[in-house]
Amino acid sequence: MRYLVTGAAGFIGSQTVDRLLADGHEVIGVDSYITGKQEFLASANASPRFTLVLGDLFDFTTVFEACADVDAVFHLAANTDVRHGTEYPRRDLDQNVIVTWNILEAIRRRGIKTILFASTASVYGDTAQLPASEAAPLPGQTSLHNASKVAAEALITAYAHGYGLRAILFRFASIVGERCSHGHIFNFCRQLYQHPDRLTVLGDGDVRRTYLDVGDAVDAMLLALEKSTTAAEIFNVASLTPCRLTESIAWIADEMKLQPAIEYMGPGPLWLGSYPALVLDCTKLQQLGWQPQLGPEAAVRRSVRYLAANPWLLEGRS
Amino acid sequence: MRYLVTGAAGFIGSQTVDRLLADGHEVIGVDSYITGKQEFLASANASPRFTLVLGDLFDFTTVFEACADVDAVFHLAANTDVRHGTEYPRRDLDQNVIVTWNILEAIRRRGIKTILFASTASVYGDTAQLPASEAAPLPGQTSLHNASKVAAEALITAYAHGYGLRAILFRFASIVGERCSHGHIFNFCRQLYQHPDRLTVLGDGDVRRTYLDVGDAVDAMLLALEKSTTAAEIFNVASLTPCRLTESIAWIADEMKLQPAIEYMGPGPLWLGSYPALVLDCTKLQQLGWQPQLGPEAAVRRSVRYLAANPWLLEGRS
Repeated sequence: MRYLVTGAAGFIGSQTVDRLLADGHEVIGVDSYITGKQEFLASANASPRFTLVLGDLFDFTTVFEACADVDAVFHLAANTDVRHGTEYPRRDLDQNVIVTWNILEAIRRRGIKTILFASTASVYGDTAQLPASEAAPLPGQTSLHNASKVAAEALITAYAHGYGLRAILFRFASIVGERCSHGHIFNFCRQLYQHPDRLTVLGDGDVRRTYLDVGDAVDAMLLALEKSTTAAEIFNVASLTPCRLTESIAWIADEMKLQPAIEYMGPGPLWLGSYPALVLDCTKLQQLGWQPQLGPEAAVRRSVRYLAANPWLLEGRS
Repeated sequence: MRYLVTGAAGFIGSQTVDRLLADGHEVIGVDSYITGKQEFLASANASPRFTLVLGDLFDFTTVFEACADVDAVFHLAANTDVRHGTEYPRRDLDQNVIVTWNILEAIRRRGIKTILFASTASVYGDTAQLPASEAAPLPGQTSLHNASKVAAEALITAYAHGYGLRAILFRFASIVGERCSHGHIFNFCRQLYQHPDRLTVLGDGDVRRTYLDVGDAVDAMLLALEKSTTAAEIFNVASLTPCRLTESIAWIADEMKLQPAIEYMGPGPLWLGSYPALVLDCTKLQQLGWQPQLGPEAAVRRSVRYLAANPWLLEGRS
């Protein structure tokens, strides 16, 4: 098969590219290298079955050209800065909504039948129904990033029904692992790289998270691609065993053989659009046969080891 | 107060303008006259407290200029063609999502604190929870129009939380009444105006609807504006007594003193994004003290009488 992967030089994108290539497929990757990293495509670039399109998905022609002769699209590109949306009021609309429309419209015009989309578990907000199933009501969104994901989901679903596409949407919880270059592990490792004796932590450390290794997330997408049959289907993707942020901090420090003094910034949301608990019901995915290979601790430790082996990532732009 | 009303020459928009003027306020109306009608602003144009901005809300500068010195915005403009979205894949994104962003961003930059927004009860889709409350889960959207409303709601809510606005969102059921110039009453009256002996009806007539007079809908907005206190609040707005489409057909025929032969086109959705039942729980609004003045029959009959008195509307573009 011939797949298009947007955000191909990103964290989940590059892992998806590598997996698809390893499975023998042809892959067209699109990335602008604005947040994506060339280094993540080192292995892919060595494959004759990989082609990189260096371009901006906001340009419809770029998207349309990249979609030539493609069988299915993994739309994984997005603005990844979930914390500072209010400083850039147009960015999430442009990069997450209008870009998604560009992808959908290119797919439609090209006669492509399948799109896979990376959404976020944060759309569940502070739902009282934990673990949240895919059918849970979504509260009003509090961040532009989460709102843009809700908007993109709605557009994709309507395109699927309106034009006979198959859409598979993944609400990812906190995905970690090799090449993870944002989020708390990255932030903490960078702090400890700069000052090994102390760590500043947003919040009180008490938040519940479901850290999942990126390999398990890619497994989930490939399994759903193979087995999901409805026009538009949403799958939660998360670790089956929640943990506290404090536990993750202990694993990170232990993996780095450090004993930093930890300063908690205090209670309250970490930022607008983050929530105290992000615990998902993944029964739908499990019913397809999905089972994570790594638990949260192993996934977190793998992230830390990767960053320790790749200090250039901690030194660069995040 | 000084209010901006978008879609000022539309059905709900012009009724809102007239009410605000009657209450002694200043009103800036924006309309492009693409679907809005000059005739609906005849009364408003006679008021020294009304100003019309003839322009396209897709142009940010138009929106920003119109927002000067405004206290609150009624954002009622939208693409009103809910049936043929798949023929115009970009239209709902442009007119309902990007335009809404333009409004929000102009509001933010102008320091305006309040936005009221006309959403649709169709976002509840084929929910099993009838009557649907505002907290009901939203299923995947099947039409681009409904998807664009979900997207706009999410954007508005995120702006409210991110920038300290007050947002009041109204999920309108089937609003009917004077100046209603789309929907089943308009369509049926036009058919009967052209051929009084026969009527063709999409579906099997069995759908359940909650027709509400536009005056009661405007009441709901003004009451919520006065009493709602949270950052972002959603209100269902619908008749408290559902009826069948067949009942409405009987009222229309009776009001016109006609006995047409009725041909039902058969079961199934009327169009993509329409659903067999649109029955809403309006408890939240009732708790503010809202009570509709007209039942569905009176509301439908009023629509018919208005169209009979204004045949130019049936003759023109719909």
